Amino acid sequence: MYTYEELHKRVEDKIKSLNLNGEPYGLYQPIRYTLDTGGKRLRPVLTLMSANLFSDNIEDTLYSAVALEVFHNFTLLHDDLMDNADIRRNMPTVHKKWSANTAILSGDAMLIKAFQLINQTQSGNKDQIIEIFNQTALEVCEGQQYDMNFETRIDVSEGEYINMIKLKTSVLLAACLKIGAISVGAKNEDAQSLYNFGINMGLSFQLQDDYLDTFGDVKIFGKSIGGDIKANKKTYLLIKALELAKGEQAKHLNTLITTNNLDAEKKIKQVKDIYKELDIENLVRSKIMFYNSLAIQELTSLKINQDKKTLLLNLANKLINRLS
Amino acid sequence: MYTYEELHKRVEDKIKSLNLNGEPYGLYQPIRYTLDTGGKRLRPVLTLMSANLFSDNIEDTLYSAVALEVFHNFTLLHDDLMDNADIRRNMPTVHKKWSANTAILSGDAMLIKAFQLINQTQSGNKDQIIEIFNQTALEVCEGQQYDMNFETRIDVSEGEYINMIKLKTSVLLAACLKIGAISVGAKNEDAQSLYNFGINMGLSFQLQDDYLDTFGDVKIFGKSIGGDIKANKKTYLLIKALELAKGEQAKHLNTLITTNNLDAEKKIKQVKDIYKELDIENLVRSKIMFYNSLAIQELTSLKINQDKKTLLLNLANKLINRLS
Repeated sequence: MYTYEELHKRVEDKIKSLNLNGEPYGLYQPIRYTLDTGGKRLRPVLTLMSANLFSDNIEDTLYSAVALEVFHNFTLLHDDLMDNADIRRNMPTVHKKWSANTAILSGDAMLIKAFQLINQTQSGNKDQIIEIFNQTALEVCEGQQYDMNFETRIDVSEGEYINMIKLKTSVLLAACLKIGAISVGAKNEDAQSLYNFGINMGLSFQLQDDYLDTFGDVKIFGKSIGGDIKANKKTYLLIKALELAKGEQAKHLNTLITTNNLDAEKKIKQVKDIYKELDIENLVRSKIMFYNSLAIQELTSLKINQDKKTLLLNLANKLINRLS
Repeated sequence: MYTYEELHKRVEDKIKSLNLNGEPYGLYQPIRYTLDTGGKRLRPVLTLMSANLFSDNIEDTLYSAVALEVFHNFTLLHDDLMDNADIRRNMPTVHKKWSANTAILSGDAMLIKAFQLINQTQSGNKDQIIEIFNQTALEVCEGQQYDMNFETRIDVSEGEYINMIKLKTSVLLAACLKIGAISVGAKNEDAQSLYNFGINMGLSFQLQDDYLDTFGDVKIFGKSIGGDIKANKKTYLLIKALELAKGEQAKHLNTLITTNNLDAEKKIKQVKDIYKELDIENLVRSKIMFYNSLAIQELTSLKINQDKKTLLLNLANKLINRLS
């Protein structure tokens, strides 16, 4: 088995080798910029790690792995424009550094590049790989649409929220694992177990994100606490609080999230006080644990050598139990 | 051979049958809206017509044909947003009817839909079809980037301009013809002749567009004459005029295209006067004829039954010699 670091290096090398130096410069440079600002390369590493569970030869899987990373970075590029976000990975976003039109067009070219890359696989299961990739890409768009829809709603249910984060975050992680497995000829049953593992790990991961933004330790979290509260973001925490709050408490919470120009610190404190009264911290912790255990179950049911699972299990635990 | 009308009907039926009724409605409805506002369906009909030159069974080609039409409509959707155009085919554009974010995200989903469609072909040349499609899609983005770059330049050369319209318009028409041919197993040589025919027909078509916008008959053209001049659009006409004008004439032309708030009618008349002095009308007419004859040459060199070529030749003549 390759280590995380070894797989990460192969991904980085492959990304560096992509030909993005062509003309017109204004189209390709923002793609190179986006890909070079890095990130954890979680998705391509998961793809390769999954392939490596079943085969020592993961050379061909690298095309799919990098296609999935390029696709992920494309979604960040367009999402940042739609969300009007200025900073990504401590760097100005493409629409800030260049323009909205550049973000649109270079994003489009990036999506096409992802399709070009995945079409280069020589795997015998190429048709299925491309089908999963296309279906997943569409689902990620659906997730982003729901996320935007939720901004103007205050009656989002828990079920709707879980479905949204599943589409926006989980399906891509799950697709990485499934594509990795089938690219080297794993059985459908095993590929599906890995897919389910990815779905549940993704849900747990995203809920952890919601949790840390409100209850994290600012020294470890690395960014200020309460950003979601400040922005009235429909997180799992707020959705549960809106569902459970009654009477005066409900009125107060509604006032807090519908009044503009409140003092941010006071607002964060008062919303957190309501969260405490409603025991939201424990609710989200137990939901994280719930999806966490579903993820681990899927992994343990996989009929492969125990040693081979360790890397993936370690990675999952690190992702799920992270503090930042 | 099927007639244009028969092919058009098959395309319309296939587009109507696409499943775009799913949730979230806000994502899929703008795609349905864009596809239903129609247009000539030139690209998918060309795809089927090309396949029909070599085979009576064009059922499978329908996937590629509609994929190419969906892709084309995706480019219009994003281009209209980038160009801030309010109206397309007499209807409000998606970003006007909904929002910029809707145009971005539904456009992305539309591009993915195009990839899903083309991946459904069962043609033995599937790999090659997808490769041409991806390469062409990227080239169309390159064309749009050059077009945007040209807006802020006054030193665009004729060669640069021809390359831009080749990328923005011709390669997609050419790819339709090539994909149609190889989808039914045509020889590479024939598919390439059709591709070259498409490139030259596209150039001729686009130059005709430039010509009509300035020299067309307003009663037949259907929209007001001089829109390109008013907007200082870097058409073939303006590029040649900038290249050929000397002395006072050059100064005058530069003043006309760099001064804001000129009276539109006066500006159009004065620019047209300069075009007349420089014989631009004949220059563009002869350039149209040049690409026209290259296109016809490619078609006549095709070694297929003369009768079979007639439809394509008629269509090409209609496109190239159109008045509106």
